[in-house]
Order: sequence, then C-alpha cells, then structure tokens
Amino acid sequence: MDKTPGFCHHASRADKSFRPTDMLPLAEKALIARLRTQVKTGRGIVTGIGDDCAVLRVPPDHEALVTTDFSLEGVHFRREWHPAESVGHRCLARGLSDIAAMGGEPIAVFVSLALPRDLPQSWVNGFSKGLLKLADSVGVSLAGGDTAQSPGGILADVIVLGSVPKGKAILRSGASVGDGIYISGELGGSAATLAQIMRSSKHKANPSHFPQHFSPQPRLALGRILRERGLASAMIDISDGLSTDLAHICEESGVGAEILADAIPRAAIGKHSHEVDLEFALHGGEDYELLFTAPHRHHISSRLAGVAITQIGHITQNKKMFLKTADGKKSRLEAKGWEHFKSRK
Amino acid sequence: MDKTPGFCHHASRADKSFRPTDMLPLAEKALIARLRTQVKTGRGIVTGIGDDCAVLRVPPDHEALVTTDFSLEGVHFRREWHPAESVGHRCLARGLSDIAAMGGEPIAVFVSLALPRDLPQSWVNGFSKGLLKLADSVGVSLAGGDTAQSPGGILADVIVLGSVPKGKAILRSGASVGDGIYISGELGGSAATLAQIMRSSKHKANPSHFPQHFSPQPRLALGRILRERGLASAMIDISDGLSTDLAHICEESGVGAEILADAIPRAAIGKHSHEVDLEFALHGGEDYELLFTAPHRHHISSRLAGVAITQIGHITQNKKMFLKTADGKKSRLEAKGWEHFKSRK
Repeated sequence: MDKTPGFCHHASRADKSFRPTDMLPLAEKALIARLRTQVKTGRGIVTGIGDDCAVLRVPPDHEALVTTDFSLEGVHFRREWHPAESVGHRCLARGLSDIAAMGGEPIAVFVSLALPRDLPQSWVNGFSKGLLKLADSVGVSLAGGDTAQSPGGILADVIVLGSVPKGKAILRSGASVGDGIYISGELGGSAATLAQIMRSSKHKANPSHFPQHFSPQPRLALGRILRERGLASAMIDISDGLSTDLAHICEESGVGAEILADAIPRAAIGKHSHEVDLEFALHGGEDYELLFTAPHRHHISSRLAGVAITQIGHITQNKKMFLKTADGKKSRLEAKGWEHFKSRK
Repeated sequence: MDKTPGFCHHASRADKSFRPTDMLPLAEKALIARLRTQVKTGRGIVTGIGDDCAVLRVPPDHEALVTTDFSLEGVHFRREWHPAESVGHRCLARGLSDIAAMGGEPIAVFVSLALPRDLPQSWVNGFSKGLLKLADSVGVSLAGGDTAQSPGGILADVIVLGSVPKGKAILRSGASVGDGIYISGELGGSAATLAQIMRSSKHKANPSHFPQHFSPQPRLALGRILRERGLASAMIDISDGLSTDLAHICEESGVGAEILADAIPRAAIGKHSHEVDLEFALHGGEDYELLFTAPHRHHISSRLAGVAITQIGHITQNKKMFLKTADGKKSRLEAKGWEHFKSRK
C-alpha cells in the first residue's frame, strides 16, 4: 500500500477531482516521502509522522510554545520572484522567529501543504530542501502535517512547537518606562529587496546578494541568551516592520517609545552593498530580527550570540511613539508598515 | 490602534493588494475580535492570543499531542452545500477526533484562516459560531492562529494541541494477531449524505436531518476511557473510510484483518432514517468514529461513554484484509475509500 498515515492526506468527498492517497500527484507523493525520511525520533519527538497525532516531549518544568503562520502564493510569495528553496526557508523562518521572540527552544515543525495539481516536481524538491535545511541547522525535526490538493496556488501553513522554562517566556507586555529599546542586526533589507524586485524590469534578484529577503536567519540563539540571562523585559520579532512591531510592545505594555532615527541600523543589500533608505528600516517587515527592551540597569553588550545589538531608543510614559532626527526634531512615529510600503509602488 | 498582536495578520509585501492590519476587511476584523473574546486564560493556557507564540501548560508527566488539518473551500467543503456553522464545526471536529484517537485530552486550538476579500460578514459569524460552540462543548479554548487575505477561496488550517499521560498514547501500531476489531457508533452517514446532496437537483440537505455529515461528534470521552482502562491495543479515527483506516492499523502493526460485513453498524440518515448502503460504511469517510483493536481477554462493553461499541472482526497474521459475507464468502477488502466513492458520481 502506498499510504502515508500520520502525514494525513484528507482529500474530500466534496471535491469532484479528489483522488485516493495512492493517486496523489507525483509531486505530493515525492514530497511526503522526502519529508518522512527526514523525521528522526530524536529530541522531543516520541512519535512523529505515522499516527493520528504526533506525540512530543516538552521538557520537565517547561511550558509549550505554539505558533502558526500561513504562507500563501500570491500573498506571501510569488513563484516567479521567489525560488522554491527560498519559499521553504522563509515559511519556516517565520515560525522559528516567533519561538526566538519568546526566548524559547523549538521542538518540532508541522507543515500543512496544499499543492496545485500541475506543480512541477522541481518546485517541490526545492521547497523541501529549503525548509529541511533550515530545520536541520537549528536541530529541529518535522513531526507531521497535512497535505491536500490546492484549488488555487500553493498554500502552506507552518506550525512550530517549542518550549520555554516555566514562567520565563519573554512577552510583549513587560516593557517599563525608562527601559532601553534594542534591535538585533540591521533592518529594512527584506522590504528594500522586494521593492527592488518590483521596480526591476525582469522582476528578479539574485538570492545570494539579498540574503535578508531570501534566507532570513531566525535569532534563536540570541533569544535564548536574553532569556537565560534575564536581560529583556519585553520582546517581539520584526515581522511586520519596526514601527508596527514596536507599537505592539507599547500597546501590550501600556507605554510609549522614543526612537532615534540615526541609531537605527540599516541593512546593506545587493551586490554593491547599498544601504537601504530609513523608511524601509522603519516600516519594512520580514527582517526577523529581535526587538527587545531592557531595564536601564542591565548592561547590554553590543554583540550577543554573534549578532550586533544596537540601542535605538527608550520606553516613555506617554503612550505614543516618537521619532527623533539628528537635528533634534521630534515627530510622531505611526505604525504604518503597510501603508508606507504601498505608497512606494 | 486597531492591531491584533498574537493573532497575527501577516499580509505580504509581495501582494499588490495587501493592506495594513487596520485596513483588514470587516469580515476578518470582526472574526478576530469575536475569536479574541472567546479566549479564556483557563485550563492550560498561560498566554493566549496577544504574543508571538501562545504559551501553554502540558500537565506534568504528560506528553504533548499535535494535529493539523486543512479545510479548503472547493476541496473539503463547498459554500453552497455546507452552512458556515457546519464548516466551523467540521474544521475543528477533524482535529479533536485525532486527539480522541490517541486517547488524549485537547488543551488548545489554533486557527489559521485566509478569507476572500468579498466574503459576507454572515459567513464569518456562522463559521465562528460553529467552531466556538464545539470548542466550548469539549472545554477547549482558542489560543491563537494566523489570518491572511485569501487569493482564492476560504482556507482554514486547524491545529489542536492536546496531551496524554507519558507512554499511554494509543498508537496505530499496537494491534496483535487475535485482537478483536471494534467500531464506535455507525458508519457511512457522512459520505452517504454527500452522495445524496450531489444527486439531488438542488444540491441541498437539511443539516438537522444529517448530523453525521454536518456536525459529527469527536469521540473524546470514549478515547479517554479506552486509554484509562487500558482496553485498546491500537486506535485510529474514521476520517478516510473504514477500509482505508483499518489498512493504516494493519500496515503500522504489521498484521491483517478479517471483517464481517453483516456486523458493520450502518448509519441511518435523513428525515426518514434510511439505512445507508454497505459500501458507504466500508469506504465512506469523515464519520469520526473510533476504530480500535483490543486483546481477546478484554471484555469490551457494548456501550462506552454513551456510544454503541460493535465488534466487526478480528486481526489476522496474513497481512491482508478480508471481508466475510453472511453466505460465508470471503473476499479481499481493499483500501479504496476514494476510488469507490468516485465511481458513484
């Protein structure tokens, strides 16, 4: 029998084009086979692909972390802009970054995947390669998921299960007045790359020159160190843009913020390492750097877990966000990742 | 700010039609608002909607269970056939049934949902109502998810996190030669209903006359009792049809099975309680009854947790499945849920 229990294929009785599992298109069958071979019954996975549920071990005195992220073709990526390997990588990077933002450790990954009937095998191979390479690099295994035939484009939902010592998760709600505001790495690289792809006549960019966009690195080691050392009072990852993600911390903590424009580390992108505009660093998203706050009394090193750490401002009592420029001018900082980006098109 | 941190809206820089979170369509905003109000920081949920990850408590000496199921419009349901409330109910029933099939307890539910821009508000309200009503009835809360604008139809991925005492999950791989094969409730009701909808000129069926299809009940209490009493050697839920799901148990356990056709309890559907054909009971899916095996020495009551339990056969050494009819004839039973069903259309 060519069945793949556990990595369930629930085709539907409501679909005129449904097929039994052993009639799955080659792409889907190859994907499941490929994904199954990757499963190790190691660290935390008691029973992986092959049953109704995955059975997983959460370390004693840990709490479980769960995050889920849709990656939809035409919404979160485009087949003509993003190589399959990059799509696989980015799908998983989003979830791992959420685990990092809690100071947690990933345990297992689940992928629900709906593929169009005519998807080339090469795309599926590339997607698996990108996703599994990133999973491997952070020591986490695929433990299950779901497959279906997509009525439209490629649809992926990636779920990451992780854990964090009891009561130690770094929430968005812990920022206090006077705390410093810090960012890891550099911002704006991903959105600026996308803007460049959209502007270019061929709608192409060489992934190796634009790693910020095509293969962002979730900051798991940094998140863990900040949690272990008790340094961060609040934390979030930059998925929606600095202005929007900082607004989330302010809202959940009931505080405001003042940011120094000149202090924001801006990414350098492309073959010639061109520094991105401030607007991309302020409002562009998908950088997957960590934004955190820390009490004034804590000394925050300028480099942690191999990543540059920069103070960009501080938390204020006034529940608004302000941006201060070099000339001393102070203006309201609005959470406007999307709107801003839209206006550039 | 009209932001919904935690219940993340990741619109995309790659989408020409993306909008900031506060420009979400009314449907999506209302859905998130509605879902947020339902979240309780009760049983197992430390931090629900409102952060990068949900933080959850797995009981001491328990292992975590995770299951994920896509429900895609046009594949798993049709807007014209399935009322929104039924879609919400069925999306979640699939995941809860997987938890039941391990003998586990559900802890939290996550919903990744992509909605078309023009989706009527009434659909969203109905979907939420159906999903939350079922969640409430089994004492489980919504702890997070993701939302996006769908480039096509309605897309939902439902994830259920549950737990089971360490080492006590009832797997598909535990069946032994000589074990009895048992089924809860009655089979074929869901697939037979769908066939009737397809045959009928209006493509409609009154949900209250066809609860097997429109509001199947996951057998959580039964799964728990079988696990607590150590009765079942292997278990799976009927999502793909008896022949296919029994094949999963046989394959994972390295055994075969002999089933008595006359013993299979068939569902009665519709206003006039019409008993379904044997073929639906054998190969139709989405009944969400539990199929389990139990050693001969165990007495299995004919009613457990309020549900009828019927022995339908036994496990054999020969790694094939056979069906025995009243006249004593024995024929091969193939796992052919889909193919069979297809031929009826």
